[in-house]
Amino acid sequence: MLLETKKEKKMQNNPVEEFNAYREKMNEKLLSDNNKLIKRIFNLDTNAYMEGALDVKTKELLGLVASAVLRCDDCIAYHLQTAHQLGVKKEGIMETLGIATLVGGTIVVPHLRRAYSFWEALEKNNS
Amino acid sequence: MLLETKKEKKMQNNPVEEFNAYREKMNEKLLSDNNKLIKRIFNLDTNAYMEGALDVKTKELLGLVASAVLRCDDCIAYHLQTAHQLGVKKEGIMETLGIATLVGGTIVVPHLRRAYSFWEALEKNNS
Amino acid sequence: MLLETKKEKKMQNNPVEEFNAYREKMNEKLLSDNNKLIKRIFNLDTNAYMEGALDVKTKELLGLVASAVLRCDDCIAYHLQTAHQLGVKKEGIMETLGIATLVGGTIVVPHLRRAYSFWEALEKNNS
Amino acid sequence: MLLETKKEKKMQNNPVEEFNAYREKMNEKLLSDNNKLIKRIFNLDTNAYMEGALDVKTKELLGLVASAVLRCDDCIAYHLQTAHQLGVKKEGIMETLGIATLVGGTIVVPHLRRAYSFWEALEKNNS
Amino acid sequence: MLLETKKEKKMQNNPVEEFNAYREKMNEKLLSDNNKLIKRIFNLDTNAYMEGALDVKTKELLGLVASAVLRCDDCIAYHLQTAHQLGVKKEGIMETLGIATLVGGTIVVPHLRRAYSFWEALEKNNS
Amino acid sequence: MLLETKKEKKMQNNPVEEFNAYREKMNEKLLSDNNKLIKRIFNLDTNAYMEGALDVKTKELLGLVASAVLRCDDCIAYHLQTAHQLGVKKEGIMETLGIATLVGGTIVVPHLRRAYSFWEALEKNNS
Repeated sequence: MLLETKKEKKMQNNPVEEFNAYREKMNEKLLSDNNKLIKRIFNLDTNAYMEGALDVKTKELLGLVASAVLRCDDCIAYHLQTAHQLGVKKEGIMETLGIATLVGGTIVVPHLRRAYSFWEALEKNNS
Repeated sequence: MLLETKKEKKMQNNPVEEFNAYREKMNEKLLSDNNKLIKRIFNLDTNAYMEGALDVKTKELLGLVASAVLRCDDCIAYHLQTAHQLGVKKEGIMETLGIATLVGGTIVVPHLRRAYSFWEALEKNNS
Repeated sequence: MLLETKKEKKMQNNPVEEFNAYREKMNEKLLSDNNKLIKRIFNLDTNAYMEGALDVKTKELLGLVASAVLRCDDCIAYHLQTAHQLGVKKEGIMETLGIATLVGGTIVVPHLRRAYSFWEALEKNNS
Repeated sequence: MLLETKKEKKMQNNPVEEFNAYREKMNEKLLSDNNKLIKRIFNLDTNAYMEGALDVKTKELLGLVASAVLRCDDCIAYHLQTAHQLGVKKEGIMETLGIATLVGGTIVVPHLRRAYSFWEALEKNNS
Repeated sequence: MLLETKKEKKMQNNPVEEFNAYREKMNEKLLSDNNKLIKRIFNLDTNAYMEGALDVKTKELLGLVASAVLRCDDCIAYHLQTAHQLGVKKEGIMETLGIATLVGGTIVVPHLRRAYSFWEALEKNNS
Repeated sequence: MLLETKKEKKMQNNPVEEFNAYREKMNEKLLSDNNKLIKRIFNLDTNAYMEGALDVKTKELLGLVASAVLRCDDCIAYHLQTAHQLGVKKEGIMETLGIATLVGGTIVVPHLRRAYSFWEALEKNNS
């Protein structure tokens, strides 16, 4: 239990781990629940971002800008993480988020602030 | 004051009670504020989900799917709670949320995770 | 070519046929285009509204209310048509659209007007 | 019947009359349909824009900016018309639509173009 | 460090200060990041609400209603704060939020509750 | 005047020309209207899609996916046209629109149909 507390404490200081832990726990529950439609949508989601006519980096940025204009913080965090793992540079991320703010308007700005915080956490985790 | 602390602590461990406590406290304030338009909208909201050509269970599911595609966590929580009180089974809830995710897209998924957590809390409270 | 013109003229006077003709023509093109992701989403859409824990009528109304709050005229028309074929009565349709207008606000009203026109056309076609 | 044709022709050249004719015809049908919820929402809509702590011109501009960021052409047209009748000047309209485009993003721009066309028609009708 | 802790504690009890602190910290980072597009959008945002054909109070209410129908809590908080500084009375705020709830629907209600809490904090800070 | 009629007739058979003609005519009016905020937003829009850390083709696809999930037909048409001029292949367009449909849901499908029609018109104009 002491370990548990330490782990929880660590996560609170680490938004990336906290995000991934909750996301994975709940996705597992959703998928074990045997609703075919939801399972298939999750399955599509995995395939949609694979290499095709467009490369994976471009596809992640497409997912990022779509998430940003639709103002979905968790979706933004997810695509930031994957883009970070693929080696997308901060300049490309910022240009993508800039286009999102232009197309989606200043209501995107609060999400931009949280996206920036999350990207900092991704870089910090990696260093 | 000690009791207050205990009550607050209990609520933090119980998302259903926490949600209801804040909702009721603020609704009371909003309604005591004497803005006719807001009062009437609240009044409509109470009447809209009553038995009519459609039964109350169906109407709650309509409220749930509308809340889910519009990605309003508090609205989802409210309709989950009412549906739970009316005896709607988990399978019906999941099919409703599945349609919401198909129609509204994968940006609904983070709300699906939180909806699942809230439903678990409702079932736990009831057991 | 003369026949074509007559057919086109007839469609302009019949919003239901016009809607279905364009929808089917373009869906065929989209599906023949060999994009796996789009094909699979279309496939999911067919399966999502089939009988399950919830009956088909309820599911069509869920699709209708989701389409209405998201203000998608073509999606509304599609679900109105299917609901009409399943024998859903006008009162149930109106209650569903009423909930959509309450949850989604008065910006839903213009779509309500067009939905009412389309329902009239469905009833007229059937008489 | 000849008169009817002339009237219809005139409307096609007059977007303001065309908009009002369809709107009134369908609102009448919706209200005669005896759905209490929809009737009450229509009733609220009439009362919401009446003089209160804020004057009627300000309220119409609030309705206009809300309609513009939610990208509802018919709602924009309606508030433009009422604002025009109340004597709001074009400069105030443009500042309102400018804020809408900033807050709501460049996806508001196509609605801005159509709003401008409709305002021109309102001014032409009045001259 | 003790002072830091005290300051952080104070902020947690003061939603206005907490909001402003995070907002300012992240805006600074975003602006120092040298992305021209984002910088210019921030710049536009400052100019858009200045006196023009419409006065500053009206413009803040336009920003508030746009933020409310688009359901952006941080944007609502920002415009509430500026309106409060400009001396807008609670009645005008409530009428603005009432119109937002009518136009945007009952999904705006949870944001209405949080807006009311934030306004209370603004008034408390000021007293 | 006879030429005018012929030109108008041609445009009705050519959705690309029709779209561009109305867009240019109204943009000119909006820009000549001397509203600084709107002028600057238009100006930003021109600069946002220029070569930077990301190349112009990628940026157009970002604009396209953002427009598609926000369901703005005119914005989709604009980015399809620019992408077509830059030599983006149909496969890349379809993958982009596929991601939009997954992230934004089946309510994107009617816009997908219209996007496909517009792309066909672009290819036909070019052949």
